Amino acid sequence: MRYGFGIDIGGTTVKLALYDEDRVPREKWEIPTDTSENGVRILPDIASSVREHASRRGLESSDVIGIGVGAPGFVTREGVALRCVNLGWQNVDVKGELERLTGYRVEAGNDANVAALGEIRGRSGKRYRDAVMLTLGTGVGGGILSDGKLVIGARGIAGELGHVTVEPEETACCNCGRKGCLEQYASATGVVNVASRILRGTDEPSALCSLPSFSCSDVFDLAKEGDALAFRAVDRSMEYLGKATAQFSLVLDPEAFIIGGGVSHAGEFLRALLEKHSRNYAIPEQAGAEVVLAEVGNAAGALGAFCLLQD
Amino acid sequence: MRYGFGIDIGGTTVKLALYDEDRVPREKWEIPTDTSENGVRILPDIASSVREHASRRGLESSDVIGIGVGAPGFVTREGVALRCVNLGWQNVDVKGELERLTGYRVEAGNDANVAALGEIRGRSGKRYRDAVMLTLGTGVGGGILSDGKLVIGARGIAGELGHVTVEPEETACCNCGRKGCLEQYASATGVVNVASRILRGTDEPSALCSLPSFSCSDVFDLAKEGDALAFRAVDRSMEYLGKATAQFSLVLDPEAFIIGGGVSHAGEFLRALLEKHSRNYAIPEQAGAEVVLAEVGNAAGALGAFCLLQD
Repeated sequence: MRYGFGIDIGGTTVKLALYDEDRVPREKWEIPTDTSENGVRILPDIASSVREHASRRGLESSDVIGIGVGAPGFVTREGVALRCVNLGWQNVDVKGELERLTGYRVEAGNDANVAALGEIRGRSGKRYRDAVMLTLGTGVGGGILSDGKLVIGARGIAGELGHVTVEPEETACCNCGRKGCLEQYASATGVVNVASRILRGTDEPSALCSLPSFSCSDVFDLAKEGDALAFRAVDRSMEYLGKATAQFSLVLDPEAFIIGGGVSHAGEFLRALLEKHSRNYAIPEQAGAEVVLAEVGNAAGALGAFCLLQD
Repeated sequence: MRYGFGIDIGGTTVKLALYDEDRVPREKWEIPTDTSENGVRILPDIASSVREHASRRGLESSDVIGIGVGAPGFVTREGVALRCVNLGWQNVDVKGELERLTGYRVEAGNDANVAALGEIRGRSGKRYRDAVMLTLGTGVGGGILSDGKLVIGARGIAGELGHVTVEPEETACCNCGRKGCLEQYASATGVVNVASRILRGTDEPSALCSLPSFSCSDVFDLAKEGDALAFRAVDRSMEYLGKATAQFSLVLDPEAFIIGGGVSHAGEFLRALLEKHSRNYAIPEQAGAEVVLAEVGNAAGALGAFCLLQD
């Protein structure tokens, strides 16, 4: 049996895991992300943690497949992080440096893309070869598989699905500085904003009015309980998302859209709403694309990083 | 030296070519497309033409790499044409049937996707690994390469780029039945429609008014000669196309957009206009994507079909 490391570098912690070649996690641990001095110690810290774990387990070089890494930013196919704002990195040769520090083979990619790979490989049931993962969290992230391979792009920035334009009439700015991005409607903050706007424009009663402030899950919970205004808000959010999935289908023609991230905890209620809109906006030939909920959760990042070694 | 056949099936003629393994065309010819009886004779006709040419040249089985085929419709990765309206085909196993009829290896794909592959492999200069081809003709077709491979999709319908929505306020219908598709503005008919709308809404003089009817190239020619109204029309068409390329960049992050089809004969004038809008709508990190004109022309279909055999 051979083993490999899957590593998910975040802005505050680095998640590490040791997998066997059947993708079974044998150990998981974390180390802090030291972002001081433009993150110059991040890779050496990872290297020493990996070496320590390998030596404690008595792993020989020949027992180790390598190290897969997901990093939050633009990472080229050659494993160079062009820019990772949260880590302070600019033009960091993740693959080259970590190979030099450890002697192991290293593959690296963008964290959202890598997590999509982990989700798709890690989920039970049908193994999708063409799928689009949408992570609805604070923002909206994406990852794309075409014929079983990650779509990475020339600069490692493919799958920036949260920033496609879905509302050209929007007047408020997205975090990216543009207007009308999918993220402004379908992220957790997006759902809250959509609900707040509806509230401001109506005298209609809603349980949302009685809350001093509310979260995305409050809106979904009230919508499930039959609050008409909350329902309109989540329906509108999912309609924007359905408009976007129809566009992604035209470009990529996936078998499935996989919905993950905090917002997706609204579960089957959200999935069914999105499926309705997604079908409605798709061309007939693509209306059968499945809409499914993510299964793998937080472990998808490290698992996907490990999967980079198996491609 | 080994040889392969590249075949581009159109609604009226089938273009065939024999290539050597360096992709040099050794012979090109055409046969009519017999679409009677749901196109049942198309593949047998191709098979006998291929066999005849192979035998005339004294090619042994071992000299022949195989047959690559592009067909106008939805063709799966496994070489099954789910639907090709112009040929009358539904669920035709192009790969299986042509292999049985000829004894050669066969690969098949959608004609627009295959032509994009032919253009990218056939052009001089830089060899793009991540590129999007847009064919501006009667309609707008697309083809996508990711890491040097065609993006095909689960049903063989990836790259339907002419039908992404770029104008949600549109009231006229696209041929596809939806409204606001890119094709309604950036195809040859689209450019004419954009110009006609501007004409109808103004008293401004334009040389277009003096023409009993006008074509897309009339509009581009007058725009180049300084006709302000014609310029506004082509500028608006290219602005819609630029909005679309920005969306494609977010999804695919290509190095380049390659513009082909009849409309692209407007040349550098069109390219420069599109580049301006494409950069303007892109996020800063992707604004450097190149906009280049297609070079290969009509031969791209057969060449791309042959290239399917080399992947």
